[in-house]
Parts: sequence; structure tokens; C-alpha cells
Amino acid sequence: MATVLAQKEKVGQVEAAQHKFCIILSKGSLDMAYPAFMLANTAATMGSEVHVFFTFWGLNVINREKVGSLKIEPVGNPGLPMPNILGMLPGMTAMATRMMRGRIEKIKMPTIPEMIKTAKELGVKLHACSTTMELQGVTKENLVAEIDDVVGAATFLQISEGGQTLFI
Amino acid sequence: MATVLAQKEKVGQVEAAQHKFCIILSKGSLDMAYPAFMLANTAATMGSEVHVFFTFWGLNVINREKVGSLKIEPVGNPGLPMPNILGMLPGMTAMATRMMRGRIEKIKMPTIPEMIKTAKELGVKLHACSTTMELQGVTKENLVAEIDDVVGAATFLQISEGGQTLFI
Amino acid sequence: MATVLAQKEKVGQVEAAQHKFCIILSKGSLDMAYPAFMLANTAATMGSEVHVFFTFWGLNVINREKVGSLKIEPVGNPGLPMPNILGMLPGMTAMATRMMRGRIEKIKMPTIPEMIKTAKELGVKLHACSTTMELQGVTKENLVAEIDDVVGAATFLQISEGGQTLFI
Repeated sequence: MATVLAQKEKVGQVEAAQHKFCIILSKGSLDMAYPAFMLANTAATMGSEVHVFFTFWGLNVINREKVGSLKIEPVGNPGLPMPNILGMLPGMTAMATRMMRGRIEKIKMPTIPEMIKTAKELGVKLHACSTTMELQGVTKENLVAEIDDVVGAATFLQISEGGQTLFI
Repeated sequence: MATVLAQKEKVGQVEAAQHKFCIILSKGSLDMAYPAFMLANTAATMGSEVHVFFTFWGLNVINREKVGSLKIEPVGNPGLPMPNILGMLPGMTAMATRMMRGRIEKIKMPTIPEMIKTAKELGVKLHACSTTMELQGVTKENLVAEIDDVVGAATFLQISEGGQTLFI
Repeated sequence: MATVLAQKEKVGQVEAAQHKFCIILSKGSLDMAYPAFMLANTAATMGSEVHVFFTFWGLNVINREKVGSLKIEPVGNPGLPMPNILGMLPGMTAMATRMMRGRIEKIKMPTIPEMIKTAKELGVKLHACSTTMELQGVTKENLVAEIDDVVGAATFLQISEGGQTLFI
């Protein structure tokens, strides 16, 4: 929260950087959920109309049972200083995730469930991908309460018309 | 096909969401090829001018010998509920891929080769990255017949001018 | 260098494809640093105003001690023809990286440190993400000399206003 609020103060008097700002979140990991919500919430704080479309692995981020335990993986991630053979040991994913969570708490960054709540308060619209839900056998009951609606790619392309869209 | 056709009916009477819609596909996995073609084909169905640029690992998706057997990886993919140590066993990539293919068939989603054919029918332009081809030692004969041309980054930036571009 | 210079000659007389072109680089691997700098430097060569924002794992790419030894991972990368169990053996990441570096040299592509120097010469602005630096405990002294400034997401959204932004 601290970071977002600090940014709010800093940018309070400027106008919206983008009149419409959209994110397609296709990844389900902690390290990609953070950039998605930091960008979405910052843009909303600055006055933009903001939409996030959760598709493919990104659906995990709004899954009621998964959102609280998103993970990062030490394997296949050259950003982490760990040989693959170590990354393979059971528990290493949990350890890498714990390390990142520890640093996040230390600098007082909000958790992903907290960032979803903030997004909602800031007016960010959260859209779940209908095709992915069908593919994964997930229903609206499995999603967090903050989701605005379930739409297909065609509807999302219409929503994002004329704005800046990022694919994460 | 069913999904794309259903969307076609639904959006038949609306105008193009984006006059020009471009995708840079840099990933060679099944789970990233799907969003690329679903977005490209949906945008084309809605009347947009659509371009896809296949670069880096994305070149695999238009490689004649690889397009039919694209894979997803259970390792390094926190979206799949599988400990790394299991993901390491030979055959697990094949199993995860088979599971995804099974679900895709069940909801009657087209395969990637089918989506490439549909893209072509809808007028989507498919561009192969010349630098990547040089890097991988791949020639035009190795690519699927649907490819329109082989271009460099400079030409693609000119093509995409004034449109919305996503990097996948 | 050869490739970039060749493109320079080829596109020397055309106007900028995009008046402003921005990249958010969130990945720290060799295979994603390349597309980022190839697109950034090509756009700059064509006359665009170009900005790159290094965030999350992308901060590694401008870390003085890491930029010279960025890696690709044979594990979790379906683009490489290698079973996971082999990818796990110590040394395989190094081998896959060496193979890619070998091919890069063969076609005379510049290294990442060289591409950063070229970016600077072409007027590309390089921005480090302040939140990521705090998260990783990295200071400006740890970054390569070419970095222009350290900014937050809010400032970057303002900088990118009205341009085309890609998330890599």
C-alpha cells in the first residue's frame, strides 16, 4: 500500500497518462501478477480508465483458492541465481517464493489479494476470459468476488479499442 | 472452430475494434501460440487489419516440422499443479501437453495448424523474422505455406505503424 | 552491429514508424534481452523517440555484474529440443547459452553490452525501476553507466503517454 499511496501523492495533480489502459494477463506466477497490478493500479491512480483481462494461466490470479498462494519458480528462471539441479529438489519453489514474499513484506508492498482490492477501489475493471474458464472447467463461483464480468476475446478487443494494451 | 464462429456471429455487425492490430510472437509453446492466434483471428473476424511477426522461439510455431507438435512444459510453469521433481521425469512434458490437448478437443477448439489456416482465410498477414531465421539456420522451405513474407524488425515496425501491437 | 547498421542503411530515408516507442523489459534472460534491444535500437535508427523501462528480472540486464553473463535456460523452454531430465544436469544451462552465443557470433550479432552502448549512441533512454531496486536491494552504483535515471511506474506511464508500449 505504502508505495501505491506514495505514488498517488506524487502524481495527484497530473492528468491521466493514458485515457484508457488495458492489460491482458496470461501468466499465473507471483512475479508477473505484481507488474500487472502495479501498472494497472498506478494508471488508475493517475486517472486512466483501466481494464485487466485474465486469460490462460492468468486465470489462476483471480481463482479464489489460488490467489493467496501464487508462486515463483526457481527452475527455468535465469533471473534467480540457482542451478537447475537444486531447483529440482522438492521445496525449492516454496523457498524461492518465501524469499520473494519476505522481501515484499520488508519494503511494505501489498499482497496480490490486497492489490486486487485496491484495484477495485480505484475503479479498475476486472474481466475473466470465458474460453479459458471453459478450458479449465472453472465457474464464476471459483473466482474472487472482485471480478466484474466474464467475457470473450471479441468483447475484450472492443473494450480496449483506442487504448494502450499490454500483454503480460 | 466453434468458438471462433460463435464470436463471428456475435460480433458480425460491429465495426473493427482496432483498425490495425499486430502481434509479435516470441514464444514457441502451445500455451502462448493459442492466445496469439485467438486474438489475431478474433480481431480479423471483427474487421481489423492484422499482422503477426514470428520471432525468436515464435519461429517454431510456423516451422513445418514443429507446428503440429508444440508443447507446454510442466517445469518452470507455476500455473500447473506439479512439483518440479515430477516435472523432470521423462514423459511429463508429453503428459502435460496431452492433458491440455485433451481439454482443447473436448471444448472443440481448433488446433494450431487449423488456426493458421483460418488466419489466412481471414486475411491475417503472417511475417517470419529474417534475423531469427539466420540465427536458427532456417530457410523459407522449412516454414508453413501460409507465411506471407520474411522481413526484418525495421520492416515490421513500419508495417505496424499507427496500430496496436502486443508482444507475446 | 552488422545487422543494425545494415538496417540503418536500408531505412535511412524513411520516416519514424512510431513517434514514440516504449518497452517494459521484465525478463532477465538472454533470449528476451535480444528482442528488447533489437526492437528499441531499430526504432531509434528509424527516428523514433525510444524508452526502455527495466523492471523485475529485467533489472538484471542493466546490472553491471550480470549483463555480461545473461543466460538462457534449457529447462522449461519448449523451444529447445532437450528433454527436461537432461536440462537438469549441472552445466546444461551453460551449454545451451554457449550454443546460442556461438550462433550469435557466427552471424555477427552484437552482444548485449554492445547493444546497450549502441542504444545510448542512438539516443534511446534507459530507465531503471525504483521499486524493483528497492525489492532487490540494488543501488545506482550496481547499474551500468548507460542508465539515464531511476523512476517509478507512475513516471514511466507519463513518459510513455501517447506512444506504443510493449511489455516483454
